[in-house]
Amino acid sequence: MSKQRVGILHPGQMGVVVAETLRNSGQEVCWASEGRSRETCQRASAAGLTDAGSVAWLCEICAVIVSVCPPEFAEGLAREVTGHGFRGLYIDLNAISPDRAGRIRGLVTSRGGSFLDGAIIGMPARARGQTWIYVAGENASPAAAYFCGGPLEFEVLGEESGQASALKMCFAAHSKGIAALQAAVLGAAQSLGVEKALERQWTRSGPSFERVAESLRQAAPKAWRFAGEMREIADTFESAGIPKGFPAAAWEVYEKLRPFKGAGLPELAAIFEKLKE
Amino acid sequence: MSKQRVGILHPGQMGVVVAETLRNSGQEVCWASEGRSRETCQRASAAGLTDAGSVAWLCEICAVIVSVCPPEFAEGLAREVTGHGFRGLYIDLNAISPDRAGRIRGLVTSRGGSFLDGAIIGMPARARGQTWIYVAGENASPAAAYFCGGPLEFEVLGEESGQASALKMCFAAHSKGIAALQAAVLGAAQSLGVEKALERQWTRSGPSFERVAESLRQAAPKAWRFAGEMREIADTFESAGIPKGFPAAAWEVYEKLRPFKGAGLPELAAIFEKLKE
Repeated sequence: MSKQRVGILHPGQMGVVVAETLRNSGQEVCWASEGRSRETCQRASAAGLTDAGSVAWLCEICAVIVSVCPPEFAEGLAREVTGHGFRGLYIDLNAISPDRAGRIRGLVTSRGGSFLDGAIIGMPARARGQTWIYVAGENASPAAAYFCGGPLEFEVLGEESGQASALKMCFAAHSKGIAALQAAVLGAAQSLGVEKALERQWTRSGPSFERVAESLRQAAPKAWRFAGEMREIADTFESAGIPKGFPAAAWEVYEKLRPFKGAGLPELAAIFEKLKE
Repeated sequence: MSKQRVGILHPGQMGVVVAETLRNSGQEVCWASEGRSRETCQRASAAGLTDAGSVAWLCEICAVIVSVCPPEFAEGLAREVTGHGFRGLYIDLNAISPDRAGRIRGLVTSRGGSFLDGAIIGMPARARGQTWIYVAGENASPAAAYFCGGPLEFEVLGEESGQASALKMCFAAHSKGIAALQAAVLGAAQSLGVEKALERQWTRSGPSFERVAESLRQAAPKAWRFAGEMREIADTFESAGIPKGFPAAAWEVYEKLRPFKGAGLPELAAIFEKLKE
């Protein structure tokens, strides 16, 4: 397969690892610096990405566009890209509901482009075997060549578009759902004055209080992003006929922790205070 | 300390282990067979408990009464006991909110009795070091002698009544909350057709799909009891100023699984079906 020009929107912390994987697979990776932050510019430059300047020009020069953004922007970004007349392959790797993936697919294909449903599970990994890109749909197999070089792993889930998004929703409902539940439990324990007693009981039966507290502190600065994801999961559960109380509860917790965006690791006490607001 | 006559209401699966601990600590343990099931009668008889016949007579002959029942019956049981004129020490070991424990305390002490707030964390254990009775309040230290013999462990949390209930609420919010969340996640994965894909991803990152599925099957026959507990936890979180979405969501899930009461281990498919009703 010959070298393709692939556009990445946008090279955030995860996007840049996707870009690295595309480059390691032999593709030229472009991005659009217009309106992006200084951090993103530095990240893209350090990763050796070609700056196309605007999204409009990116859409002009790329055969493939890969979307990696917070879930609430996924549909708007697809609209922007199709609005610029893009007719190549649009790969959506965002944490969105299968229904939203279906709407984006409809938008892209109605404008003459092709669509591939995808999702990323794991952290922005620099080593192989840690984080997976899953895709599903009729364009899955040809896309494999773009992502063979690592560090992200690549797996085709099948021919049915929406399955990659569905898997992501279920996985995140569990991992980020538990993290939010633990935030609420620790907050209640602190508020009720039994934090130390809970720590002692957990020493006896598990989980590790220290690990739970640490993962809560790690999650807080990313809560603004998780909140949008939880809304997508609630929609997904509803479509699946499953009670959506858990993602809705996680959404509420992460909304309350939204102010920690961009901050360093907060103290537990600060997290509990926000939870109670 | 001389041998006391302690009444247990009721010797269910957990109650009988509490009774065994009381007996191992040198107490005579009584119960009331009136209106109880054949299983409970056999259990009490096998455990060497003295049958007082009625709750009224049990209240007459016992210096201490220990309450172990589903949370929704805890307050009614205390009313029944005080209604019979009981003026001894009433130990409530149920999974109830600190507010409800406070109401029961008020009821017992207003009738001239003493009250001790307590809770049990763990399974009905036959060996030491697995399950803890926690108590809190001004009658905690004198009660220690009743529970020193195992197999249940005993710990005084302090002088503040309600702390044992609060600890139980937080612990169960986590353990049984996660179990309910996992039920919803597996149900969604099955409904969306990504159950196998989730199993494969969990093999890579954890948790163990098999263990989650097994603990869900184990929980389903006990869901009717967990449902009441989750309502208590929702009340507790609300009083503590913490979002109560998680226990409310768990309550909804366990309510849907209520029909598995008294059944053997159900198949996952049957659980998913109930979840979607």
